Amino acid sequence: MKIETVRGGLCAVKGVRAYGIKEGHNGLAVIEGKGQAVGMYTASKIKAAPVLFTKRQLEGCEGQIQAIIANSGCANSFTGEQGMRNAEKMAELAADSLGVDKKEIAVASTGPIGKQLDMELIERQLGHVVNGLTAEAAGSTAAAKAILTTDTFYKERAIRIDTGDEERVVIGGIAKGSGMIFPHLATATMLSFIYTDARLSEEIQRASFEDAVANSFNMVVVDGDMSTNDLILLVSTGQGGEISEGDFKEGLNFVCKELAKLIARDGEGATKFIEAWVKGAASVADAKEAAKSIVRSPLVKSAIFGERPDFMCGRIIAAIGSCTTVSGVDPSRISIGLKGEDKDKVSAVKNGEFMDLSGVVRELMKDKEIFIEVDLGIGESEATAWGCDLSYDYVRINAGEA
Amino acid sequence: MKIETVRGGLCAVKGVRAYGIKEGHNGLAVIEGKGQAVGMYTASKIKAAPVLFTKRQLEGCEGQIQAIIANSGCANSFTGEQGMRNAEKMAELAADSLGVDKKEIAVASTGPIGKQLDMELIERQLGHVVNGLTAEAAGSTAAAKAILTTDTFYKERAIRIDTGDEERVVIGGIAKGSGMIFPHLATATMLSFIYTDARLSEEIQRASFEDAVANSFNMVVVDGDMSTNDLILLVSTGQGGEISEGDFKEGLNFVCKELAKLIARDGEGATKFIEAWVKGAASVADAKEAAKSIVRSPLVKSAIFGERPDFMCGRIIAAIGSCTTVSGVDPSRISIGLKGEDKDKVSAVKNGEFMDLSGVVRELMKDKEIFIEVDLGIGESEATAWGCDLSYDYVRINAGEA
Repeated sequence: MKIETVRGGLCAVKGVRAYGIKEGHNGLAVIEGKGQAVGMYTASKIKAAPVLFTKRQLEGCEGQIQAIIANSGCANSFTGEQGMRNAEKMAELAADSLGVDKKEIAVASTGPIGKQLDMELIERQLGHVVNGLTAEAAGSTAAAKAILTTDTFYKERAIRIDTGDEERVVIGGIAKGSGMIFPHLATATMLSFIYTDARLSEEIQRASFEDAVANSFNMVVVDGDMSTNDLILLVSTGQGGEISEGDFKEGLNFVCKELAKLIARDGEGATKFIEAWVKGAASVADAKEAAKSIVRSPLVKSAIFGERPDFMCGRIIAAIGSCTTVSGVDPSRISIGLKGEDKDKVSAVKNGEFMDLSGVVRELMKDKEIFIEVDLGIGESEATAWGCDLSYDYVRINAGEA
Repeated sequence: MKIETVRGGLCAVKGVRAYGIKEGHNGLAVIEGKGQAVGMYTASKIKAAPVLFTKRQLEGCEGQIQAIIANSGCANSFTGEQGMRNAEKMAELAADSLGVDKKEIAVASTGPIGKQLDMELIERQLGHVVNGLTAEAAGSTAAAKAILTTDTFYKERAIRIDTGDEERVVIGGIAKGSGMIFPHLATATMLSFIYTDARLSEEIQRASFEDAVANSFNMVVVDGDMSTNDLILLVSTGQGGEISEGDFKEGLNFVCKELAKLIARDGEGATKFIEAWVKGAASVADAKEAAKSIVRSPLVKSAIFGERPDFMCGRIIAAIGSCTTVSGVDPSRISIGLKGEDKDKVSAVKNGEFMDLSGVVRELMKDKEIFIEVDLGIGESEATAWGCDLSYDYVRINAGEA
């Protein structure tokens, strides 16, 4: 099996057309492509109307959807019954424009909480978007741009999997997410729409999706805040080739991790990308918790922003210690290695002892990508989490200043 | 029963002498006062040497301690066997200076993680501190100042409880804490040493202490990072009057809440103090989780820094939603009231609907103290948590910049 990155995002997938427009804060995207959809939704106790609505829609149509309509600029969250009616209205408007059944439309929203959608605006934008729908690469990019909020770049990836046969399978997706990023349980943590033309059973599609999300989107922390609107959909058009379960899982994992890392890179105010790889843990759950606690810690994040390896290492230790459900933690067995971009790994902590953190380590912290490798030294399990540093700009953006 | 705030901090308590000095980052404090001590310790899986040592000491001497020695400038955390030897050495040095048994000394440390104590410095400072020990109010203040790290003011409180009889009971304490503040389980979250002259059984002392800490220190969040060094001790000298369990609990709760709120007010980089009172919850545990999630959220904190009530309210909703163990959350029943300093409460959210958040609400956000009152509308339980906003200075301080 060979994975090859290709251009085109969503539109690299057979049977998919997309387009979107953005006017100021307000964007609208439509992705058209008949297929079998599976969804993952925020674990928040307060789910936004589009999340509740789309979950219900997918149950009603047994996952057989025709299109996705998604807006940015208003989350349609904490909007009561009017919010539910507006989510339904979005589906109706999209269905009418596309000439399909309104029961087969998924809806997503992102933006500030607590205000109602401007349905006139959505109706007007929808006309332009449906007119623009295209299977060309530009359509996917336009959709990816339309759903952005505080993001600074659009997020799009596609791969072609060469299964060795004549047939090829494509997986392509777009994502958005920059703040209020913290994954929880079996939850997505932002908007992401992924399509594939693979011919798959729903069972394999769902199992592969849950597995991929758990190891990608659910391992990204920007600020530890959980959104009311997180929604990820995987749709298979079935217009491409057949593929083994193992190969599909590997490909889907790759795409999801790529999109998840783009979200970490574009965290609000981020100046550095952080990867925390925890190994030597007693279980995968332990490794995941420890890795996430490192990229979640405001103190670790601000030490990385300040390029201070001494503070960073002490705070990584504290972050690991704070994981009260992780078993067998023994300070004298903990080692920490650090890497920057294209550099050799250096040892920062070795079996519980701090190494010299001046010179080469201090130099490495100036890089834009910081790779932290923690060995707990007690088992065989590992996990990786991604995040970004905590900068003045995170505060500025979220304080609502210009 | 009447509670009266008095001056003198620790030294308002009969049988207590204290002193401390601070030289640059390095401080040393000694509190002398024979009594019955109970301790609460960090829940971190990686406990600093002084935490492990003091826990062992208290078990060894059945809580009968003579003095506490505490240093700032080095946490003696993640320091292996050498760290344990140094904690013991601190106890020995203090015992020798005071002419008491080294088994009856408690030790605490705060500062950066991963470096060994400078024992020569501690020995030298100890000579000055023991010479300075006094039962005058200045001694308590000197000790309170000596244990500070990034704190911007010292934290000290004392009360006299008039029980109606001739006898009076005093409770006095000092605390430090500014960053790496997040309480967990039955844990303290910073250094605090509280003395009382009340004549109490150990059982009542411990029960009152656990209760008071759960509702005070454990309800303060600065950044959500848990320290390896948290340690709170309550020592009763028994040289004052008798008091009922109920009265003592009320008094101790008062002192602990006052000290806890001082820590919230002095959170790293704080420009505003936040109190979140959650009522109408199905259980106290639910109310506590919801209240803490509000003061923990970086997005709520930065909205308050930016004085944006619109962002703040949406993010409070998201923070409540993120409490996946809180039961019965219903958006249409949630109301949020806001108060500033000396102002009337205004309604920001009423039964799931956002009110007008311009005008008086926007004006209120300019205050230095923001009181958030959330009614979940589903039960009778309540809880209060304290915190501070997230400012540029939090990032600056923790990035290690000047």
